[in-house]
Amino acid sequence: MTYYDFKVRVRYGETDRMGVSYYANYLVWFESARTEYFRALGFVYSEFEQQGILLPVAEAHCRYFAPSTYDDLLTVRTSVAQMRQSSIRFEYQVFKEKNEKPIVTGYTVHVFSNSNLKPIRIPEPLRSKVELASLDL
Amino acid sequence: MTYYDFKVRVRYGETDRMGVSYYANYLVWFESARTEYFRALGFVYSEFEQQGILLPVAEAHCRYFAPSTYDDLLTVRTSVAQMRQSSIRFEYQVFKEKNEKPIVTGYTVHVFSNSNLKPIRIPEPLRSKVELASLDL
Amino acid sequence: MTYYDFKVRVRYGETDRMGVSYYANYLVWFESARTEYFRALGFVYSEFEQQGILLPVAEAHCRYFAPSTYDDLLTVRTSVAQMRQSSIRFEYQVFKEKNEKPIVTGYTVHVFSNSNLKPIRIPEPLRSKVELASLDL
Amino acid sequence: MTYYDFKVRVRYGETDRMGVSYYANYLVWFESARTEYFRALGFVYSEFEQQGILLPVAEAHCRYFAPSTYDDLLTVRTSVAQMRQSSIRFEYQVFKEKNEKPIVTGYTVHVFSNSNLKPIRIPEPLRSKVELASLDL
Repeated sequence: MTYYDFKVRVRYGETDRMGVSYYANYLVWFESARTEYFRALGFVYSEFEQQGILLPVAEAHCRYFAPSTYDDLLTVRTSVAQMRQSSIRFEYQVFKEKNEKPIVTGYTVHVFSNSNLKPIRIPEPLRSKVELASLDL
Repeated sequence: MTYYDFKVRVRYGETDRMGVSYYANYLVWFESARTEYFRALGFVYSEFEQQGILLPVAEAHCRYFAPSTYDDLLTVRTSVAQMRQSSIRFEYQVFKEKNEKPIVTGYTVHVFSNSNLKPIRIPEPLRSKVELASLDL
Repeated sequence: MTYYDFKVRVRYGETDRMGVSYYANYLVWFESARTEYFRALGFVYSEFEQQGILLPVAEAHCRYFAPSTYDDLLTVRTSVAQMRQSSIRFEYQVFKEKNEKPIVTGYTVHVFSNSNLKPIRIPEPLRSKVELASLDL
Repeated sequence: MTYYDFKVRVRYGETDRMGVSYYANYLVWFESARTEYFRALGFVYSEFEQQGILLPVAEAHCRYFAPSTYDDLLTVRTSVAQMRQSSIRFEYQVFKEKNEKPIVTGYTVHVFSNSNLKPIRIPEPLRSKVELASLDL
């Protein structure tokens, strides 16, 4: 699996009075996409947490090319572009239905951490299952 | 102190494409108002939590009479209308600047709880400081 | 159709530091559930808006019996319990998977309005398609 | 004025079950900070909108060095680092009280647009009032 396509429908309250999806929501949808990327690989993120493994964010970036709005069914294409000892970099492309170019692209970098938020090595079963792929943002 | 007036400015992302404040945000502002009500009485809610005292919500209600929108500076008038053994009922009136009638009214009921979310008695210093007052919603 | 079951997965950012879903989010999920209730009846709410028909909220109420948390897959059972000339009352029950009792119940009242937020009659095709049903909250 | 210091208190619902402020909220606070930056210069952003001038976002970036949590009173230092014909680049540093190093830094790029979201020249009175300053992120 080089990427996972997560679908999300824009909620009314996620729009603003400009009539479009509020910009911070893309980070929220990226996070749901990460959860589903892990699940598709066979990992449940909440079980990491039960083992004391956290995944705080170190960096986030978005580029906005076109708007979305209420009731749009978006696809968030998600890949892992890089893994270092502790850190993992996700890339995202957001598509509107039947649209060819992404309306938003972005990436986030996270650090696998223990419950004191100290970096730890990426858990082995995860590392070996992830197939690195860049979305060429 | 029979009530506390908390001021909050409506954020852009708190509006929706109807051009008005999204309805769920009033519950968010009520919560900030509770924090400031406690602080005005001399209690810091986060210190309750450090002592293992939580205040989950049991009930919430809002009545919406008129809209607010981006950049409005709202006043959330907050009182405690009732205390039982474990539970506390807050009442709220939301005013726009210079406006006489509330645009939104509401109440929330909370249960003082330990860290297992089991009800506990309302802490004595708080109980004796609160001056009960209904806002006649 | 007496009710519609909308499924929603709790997002990480929808939890708070008490470890549970933040209380205002239930109103957000209720709204997604209304959108899907309408769609299941054959109506797309965004098309109402294109016709200048809005559905602002007049009242909202929630009762919280048990918490939910990150990654829970919730079912929001949604019915229309009452329609008057302009107003419509939705009722909601929120269930956790395989759970028999609702963890949260609620209702919202909305007023069909024109673009100046003045009440209008409930559109006929909608009125005749809705099958009234109370969830006995 | 080379920068403006906007203060914001972290709300309970802005934390997540990791116990810290959810990462997308920094973008929300950046936006409030922009509003107050403009106001400090003598411009009310909602009046731009009344004149048909919008300011959609083209790019957003955050770097997270340390967490914040409920009830923290944050300072969002905000400057304009660059203006081109249509676009404006804001930079941000987020400080906790009495803390010397920023816990989060970021920037956003926006495009002055008409109501059809087509780029327009930055309004002259604004351009001449802004004093460019980089926060050296």
